[in-house]
Amino acid sequence: MSEHVGVDVGGTFIKAGLVAASGDVLARTRVPTDADQGLEAIEERMHEAVRGLGGRSGGRVGVGLPGIVLPAEGVVRVSPNIPCWRDYPARERLENVLGTGVAIENDANCAAVAEGWIGAGARIRSFLLLTLGTGCGGGVMLDGELWRGESGRGGEIGHVVVDPGGEACGCGSRGCLETVASVTGIERMARDASLAGGVEDLASRARSGGVREALLFESAGRALGIAVADWLNILDVHAIIVAGGLRACLDLIEPGLVDEALMRAYCLDPGSLRVLGAGLGEDSGLVGAARLAMSGMGDPQSNG
Amino acid sequence: MSEHVGVDVGGTFIKAGLVAASGDVLARTRVPTDADQGLEAIEERMHEAVRGLGGRSGGRVGVGLPGIVLPAEGVVRVSPNIPCWRDYPARERLENVLGTGVAIENDANCAAVAEGWIGAGARIRSFLLLTLGTGCGGGVMLDGELWRGESGRGGEIGHVVVDPGGEACGCGSRGCLETVASVTGIERMARDASLAGGVEDLASRARSGGVREALLFESAGRALGIAVADWLNILDVHAIIVAGGLRACLDLIEPGLVDEALMRAYCLDPGSLRVLGAGLGEDSGLVGAARLAMSGMGDPQSNG
Repeated sequence: MSEHVGVDVGGTFIKAGLVAASGDVLARTRVPTDADQGLEAIEERMHEAVRGLGGRSGGRVGVGLPGIVLPAEGVVRVSPNIPCWRDYPARERLENVLGTGVAIENDANCAAVAEGWIGAGARIRSFLLLTLGTGCGGGVMLDGELWRGESGRGGEIGHVVVDPGGEACGCGSRGCLETVASVTGIERMARDASLAGGVEDLASRARSGGVREALLFESAGRALGIAVADWLNILDVHAIIVAGGLRACLDLIEPGLVDEALMRAYCLDPGSLRVLGAGLGEDSGLVGAARLAMSGMGDPQSNG
Repeated sequence: MSEHVGVDVGGTFIKAGLVAASGDVLARTRVPTDADQGLEAIEERMHEAVRGLGGRSGGRVGVGLPGIVLPAEGVVRVSPNIPCWRDYPARERLENVLGTGVAIENDANCAAVAEGWIGAGARIRSFLLLTLGTGCGGGVMLDGELWRGESGRGGEIGHVVVDPGGEACGCGSRGCLETVASVTGIERMARDASLAGGVEDLASRARSGGVREALLFESAGRALGIAVADWLNILDVHAIIVAGGLRACLDLIEPGLVDEALMRAYCLDPGSLRVLGAGLGEDSGLVGAARLAMSGMGDPQSNG
């Protein structure tokens, strides 16, 4: 099978693509997730997204899902943005709905796989992939291999502590990276500062000289800098790839990120930190999901 | 060669041991480091420690050193507790002083190697080793292999940020784990609270009902809990092994560590976090250093 379907389920939209063996995206669809409409509604939306591709692939479908995903078991343990998924047997149910074999994986891990395959990480053995969207996720690539961890929680960098007494996070902790360095986090900080508009408006005003708007992105960047410094101090891996909705705001975020990370990373040569935008843009999740379907990762037989 | 010498250079003491192929320590010596007396004085102290073992081994010597160590190059880039080491060609100089082949490695990495070999991590594929002594270091074991990182900085968990606006750290950042969760950190907090005595006195009073002393160890434990949560959230590796001087205070530190880590680790099953004391106690550094000498790690030929 030379073409595979990849699906990237976000808190707001489901994106699907028909992906060639080269990684080129031959067709794309996008539908709302309807995350609050329940299991069956979301599954039907995924079906709709895949059908929209025109049925040109009969092969296995790769699906990237937000939350704690156990690829070998085919289960989503929990998903912060899709509360109805709790020990959700995603693979089995989606195989029924889509009528074909399905491989599942965490969405940020999919993005890391894609970027390491044909994206910004194609020549980099080890990197941290950050997906900054509705939430904040991550994928850890070490020496060319996705590091999943012991219970499917690897790369949950959105819950690295950047301010111990900070904003309450949905996870039960406080001051997690995600409370600041996400679309949701920036829009919350904007409301707290009585600034109107969504993140795109805010970014546009920041670029036109809006000092208070620019500070929101600097705050997100500095929070990311603390988390990146923690990453650098623990693993000493120097490449960071930014994907997700906030990738478009990297110009506003990067200066604070780099300044804070270099101040806090122990004994790091300033020139060695590389912050890269995802080469595949918003396609990285679905391309990685298709790659998983191609490679057999996420098979019941492959143990993850 | 069935016996090898391992040397563990700390900020205060140099420990040396004659280590059998089984890992048993057949003889031990300990001398002051004299860290402020300059390069040659420290080298002479190391020589004295090795001579004190009775010259029963003619084989290669493994040396664990605090700081950023590049084993393949044989160089210590920088050492916070031994300021005279800056781009210090340790291997070459120590080979001259000791008159035998030398392998060098970061001291916490040595401890991780030892614990993974015959200590608390012997049946654990992946763990974080924390050395809590004068400073706070770490060693990262992933899937049975020491993870060194791209520039010898792997496992510098002492500089993970636990309080962004906290105490200034020698590294130039603020609120690093090391400023709280180390012998130095606890003794500083004690002075700030007008409590007299070193960490052993403080621990003894905490165990006899001293509430203010107990709070010092709880603070260190909670700071460790934040750093451990960051570790868990990034890598999803569930075992933590504590070595160094504060291992003897683990009873006072662990409750705060576990409480804070579980509160902040995203979606971790409470029972899955394991906090273990180093099985080799204060021997872990020198046993690991000897293990490196045995295995050929740190050889110029072995690239690391």
